[in-house]
Amino acid sequence: MTEVIVGRNAVLEALRADHPIERISLEEGVKVDVRLDEIVRLARMKDISIEYVSRHTLDAGGRYGAHQGIVAFTSSRPSLTVTDLLAVSTRENEPAFYVILDGVEDPHNLGAVIRTAEATGAHGVITRSKRAVGLTPAAVKAAAGAAEYVPLVQVPNISQTVELLKKKGVWIVGIDIAGKDDYTDIDYTLPTAIVIGAEGAGISSLVRSKCDFLASIPMRGKITSLNTSVAAAVVLYEAFKQRTSKH
Amino acid sequence: MTEVIVGRNAVLEALRADHPIERISLEEGVKVDVRLDEIVRLARMKDISIEYVSRHTLDAGGRYGAHQGIVAFTSSRPSLTVTDLLAVSTRENEPAFYVILDGVEDPHNLGAVIRTAEATGAHGVITRSKRAVGLTPAAVKAAAGAAEYVPLVQVPNISQTVELLKKKGVWIVGIDIAGKDDYTDIDYTLPTAIVIGAEGAGISSLVRSKCDFLASIPMRGKITSLNTSVAAAVVLYEAFKQRTSKH
Repeated sequence: MTEVIVGRNAVLEALRADHPIERISLEEGVKVDVRLDEIVRLARMKDISIEYVSRHTLDAGGRYGAHQGIVAFTSSRPSLTVTDLLAVSTRENEPAFYVILDGVEDPHNLGAVIRTAEATGAHGVITRSKRAVGLTPAAVKAAAGAAEYVPLVQVPNISQTVELLKKKGVWIVGIDIAGKDDYTDIDYTLPTAIVIGAEGAGISSLVRSKCDFLASIPMRGKITSLNTSVAAAVVLYEAFKQRTSKH
Repeated sequence: MTEVIVGRNAVLEALRADHPIERISLEEGVKVDVRLDEIVRLARMKDISIEYVSRHTLDAGGRYGAHQGIVAFTSSRPSLTVTDLLAVSTRENEPAFYVILDGVEDPHNLGAVIRTAEATGAHGVITRSKRAVGLTPAAVKAAAGAAEYVPLVQVPNISQTVELLKKKGVWIVGIDIAGKDDYTDIDYTLPTAIVIGAEGAGISSLVRSKCDFLASIPMRGKITSLNTSVAAAVVLYEAFKQRTSKH
């Protein structure tokens, strides 16, 4: 389902609000102003493709009204809920298997996590809807197609989502540098949600306090943290191995 | 050891050649020309910091000669060889443990691999010196400090390096989608070099033909490849687990 955003102010605001814009059509030879400059700058930064089209194409029989030389196309996916994810697990006839990203801000990391989640058979990825990255074009690109197959659920409050999952019998495993269990000692064949925090900050303290287990990934060198998508991959593959060897 | 590049043409050429420039000093209020414009654009693209300094600072008692308002500082690390890596393994009194990247082009991937290599105690990372990414500022940033601790060896020919390592008793494990062994069935406690190919292309056929083992990472979804740094991490952590559990 494609949504269309028309005109300079509207497109600029959508870009600033990090709307999931897929592409922008720009009229060839149109007069540049400060807003258009900013639109092009933001679009490049966000890796959104700009196609130059004729005025005639944009006029499109009046379909876009007063377009001021610019139209943006968004891909608004149907928004999913945690209940939808639980339904996926039931449908697959498998114990729940989710990844929760608590505050990941890098679209490449989000994309890479979605890609690994797809490869390891996770039923869905849960992220915060605020102060975190959404399915931006850069994230979709990094996911290399996997975003089409792995449900992404954006929730306003990770802590409440964790509570809901616990009520549904899902065990919450937080990956934390101070976790006392080794990540390989966790039983991932049970219904499980794996929580990964933001780089640097880690899992927020409220969410951390609600985890059933806190597990750490051992590290032997001088650097004390892994890239977010790497940490997620190491744990997801351990879970995948346990789940497939019990089949 | 810092190398200094002075003047607009020299700095511009160094940037275009992807020299490992760490930072650039630019004279405040200096007259802009096309070259300077291009220098600033490339520096931003490559994530190289630009500091604005006074003419007096740049003159520096004539140390930089006719600087034309610009001086770039590179960090030229001593270049290492495969023999140096073998010496690291001997010094650590451990069976060799290397990662070979056969044609990785993304600096974020190189940086993330170096970071994981450091965390799992690998003795070094080997990359191609041509048509592959070097230790650019973006790679150093993605490595989050680990580039200081993990030796990176750039070799003109991966295939010859593989031959040399084999003669020294190192087993070569190629990670390949068509590999018939599961990556967890390999014994990584022996002297091992893990070969990871470029995304998409995979390991080059010559190098593939020289691997002692070809191992695959199982994937269950519809997408048939993992992000390079994710694939490296999954295998490196399996190796790390095997190596630490035998201690």
